[in-house]
This record gives sequence, structure tokens and C-alpha cells, in this order.
Amino acid sequence: MSLAPRPQAEPALRFFGYFRSSASYRCRIAFNLKGVAPALVPVHLRRGGGEHLRPDYVAVNPQRLVPALEVDGTALTQSLAIIEWLEETHPAPPLLPRDPLARAQVRAFALAIAAEIHPLNNLRVLAYLKGPLGHDQATVDQWYRHWVGEGLLACEALLARNGQGRFCFGDAPGLADICLVPQMHNARRFGCDLSAVPRLAAIDAALAALPAFAAAHPDAQPDAEP
Amino acid sequence: MSLAPRPQAEPALRFFGYFRSSASYRCRIAFNLKGVAPALVPVHLRRGGGEHLRPDYVAVNPQRLVPALEVDGTALTQSLAIIEWLEETHPAPPLLPRDPLARAQVRAFALAIAAEIHPLNNLRVLAYLKGPLGHDQATVDQWYRHWVGEGLLACEALLARNGQGRFCFGDAPGLADICLVPQMHNARRFGCDLSAVPRLAAIDAALAALPAFAAAHPDAQPDAEP
Repeated sequence: MSLAPRPQAEPALRFFGYFRSSASYRCRIAFNLKGVAPALVPVHLRRGGGEHLRPDYVAVNPQRLVPALEVDGTALTQSLAIIEWLEETHPAPPLLPRDPLARAQVRAFALAIAAEIHPLNNLRVLAYLKGPLGHDQATVDQWYRHWVGEGLLACEALLARNGQGRFCFGDAPGLADICLVPQMHNARRFGCDLSAVPRLAAIDAALAALPAFAAAHPDAQPDAEP
Repeated sequence: MSLAPRPQAEPALRFFGYFRSSASYRCRIAFNLKGVAPALVPVHLRRGGGEHLRPDYVAVNPQRLVPALEVDGTALTQSLAIIEWLEETHPAPPLLPRDPLARAQVRAFALAIAAEIHPLNNLRVLAYLKGPLGHDQATVDQWYRHWVGEGLLACEALLARNGQGRFCFGDAPGLADICLVPQMHNARRFGCDLSAVPRLAAIDAALAALPAFAAAHPDAQPDAEP
């Protein structure tokens, strides 16, 4: 008879995401860094009018947004809340520093992307600009680039003040890096000029080489499309 | 000679806010709940072209947004990052539950407001709709009400599933309540129809009666204007 403690059962995880969603991309990087592999349930945001609007998905996420994570049947929403849950339940390797002031600076950088840039540029907002407001694609692209440009400049300034090391806040990737890479991917996809954010560009390139980031790239997902 | 440990010096706190900013309003509620009283530095977002654009404030927050909190001279930005810092450094009373799944649900609700509704409706976005995009006030108001309506409906659904008690997630106010009240205040200010969110309306009314929330109301601030 062994006296070793019985290992606690790992919860059953189901991840609802879309290969191109940058909030899904954030979570994929975080899962990879933590060595956690949830079962993937692809939710296609464009097919059939949008699978995120189907009643079975709305039951998972009443916000009708991806991603969502089911933990033993309990649905969690919002990428940053999912990543904080992951950090609390799987502490190694840490995605946040230990010092409260340093944690706040990393979280602020993450929010400067997740709560300031991304919400202005997601699909439903672009659809509103085109539909009810009647703008053409060129005006919508300009809107997109305006908020990315302004937001990334602020991020570059935040790092000039508080950043350090190879990545955003040190020599190990963390929450800030997890938010940066998908945002930079989107910026390139929409042809944003990144010459004003050389530090972000260099960090992004360094992060792209890490296996956890490479494996999370939209093109590497099972639901990817050309 | 006393053997009692020398009390650790409280850090010097300076809070940069604007009475009407809902992100500032969130922080004020959190400070009040924790019994923390930072020195206030009002930053007027409309006066003189916007005091948040002045070099002395941009040095505090390169994002040119309020609020910011200086802790012994170190500037923190983003209301949710500031509140998480407060929670970590002043644990009582707690603003988040202890269980990781429950914490994630509270954070998701907070983000459903702070990262989904509010970013679409802040001053700079409304200014872009009016300026570069040339929309009139009626169209801008419709935009505002559209995102508030859609966002609050999702919040109502999140609570129908996971909410409990007198407030959002229990009988003590927490992070979700801190985000809800300023958003409901804005919704009323812009004439949004709240009949579809009766649970949010009832919780908001119950919270308004708490001294920590009443003292944080925009009208009760030293920089308030009629």
C-alpha cells in the first residue's frame, strides 16, 4: 500500500475558440506555456451566419463571443479571466511576477491591448460600422488602423518606462507577451504601419520563435483556413 | 523600549481621476470599500482641450486615459489592474471570492463591462465618430445605446446563470458590483432603456445605498460639475 497522496483528478477542459480570434489566440498561448491541453471545440464566427450565435453556444457564453473554457461543465468566459484562472490553478511557470506593483504593470499592459485596442476592432464592431453606419471597407480599415496605431504607441511607451529583458517584462514570457503577439498578428494582417513601435516588433519576433507561441498561431490550428 | 514591530509605512498614494470617468468611478468605489484614501489629482478631460493630453499627465499615463494611481511615485494604469493591486495589498474586505472558478466568473463579469461595453463608449471613440466619421449626435447616441444594450443583456444572462445573493455574486459587494454601478450610471445618463435588465437594475439600486458606493458617485466628487 502506497502512502503517496492520491493524485487529484485533472478537471475535464473544453476550449471553445476560433483560429483567427485574437482572444482565443491569447488563451492558446497560455495553455501551451502551462502545458495544459483542453479539448478543442471550434466555433466558426463567419460560417452559417456565425456559430457563436447558435443557441448551444449561447448557452456556453451568453456574450456570444469566443473564447470560452468549460471546466468540468462550468463555463468560463473572457480571455483574461480564463488566463487568471489558469495562473491560479496551474502556477508554474508563472505568467505574472510576484511583486504586486510589478503584477499591476503587467496587467495594465495586457488591458491596454485587451480592453483598449481589441474591443474597438472585433468583428461585431466592424460589422456595425459597415452595416448600420454604412461605411465602406476603406473607412473601416482606417478605423482599425487608427486604434491599433494609437494603442500600440501607448504600449511602446509603457514598455519604455517599465519594460525589461528580452520580452515585455523580463526574460520569461508572461501575460503581457500573451496579449502582445495576437495583437501584432492582427496589426500586420490589416497592414498597420509598425515602424513607430520598434520595441514591440522586436519582442514580438523573439516570442514568435518560442514553441508555445508558434503552436498557438492561427495558421497552426485544426480549424485554420487559408 | 517597545517590542512591538514598527508599523510599515503606508505608501504615498496619488489618484488621477475625473469625476465623470466610469473607470475612475470604479477605482473610487474600490478605495472606499478598502478604506484607502489616496490624494486626489483631478484631470479634466474636456477643459483646455483635455488635461489628460498635457505632457505632465502623459508622463504619468502614456495611454492618455484616466485613471492612474501613483504608489510612492510609481504610476499604475488601467482601473482593473489598479483594483487587483489594491486587492493584493489590502486583502480585507475581499473583492474577489477565494475559489478560482468563482473568481474567474466575477472577473469575466467585470471584463464584460470594462473590456466590452466601456471601450466602445468612451470620449475618444465618440469624438472619432463625430469628427473623422462625421456622424451627428443622434447617430452617436444610437451607437452608445446599442453597445450598452447588447452588453448589459449579456451581463444579465451571466448573472441568471452564476449570480447569487443581494449583489452580483453574493451578499457582499465585490469587483463585479464595482464595475456594474458606473456602467448603469452611464446607461441612465444616455437614456438607455433598462427594462430588459431587471436583475442588474435591482442590484444597482441596492448597491447605491451603500456608503462606499454613494461616496464614489460622480456628483459627490470635489471636481464635480453640474
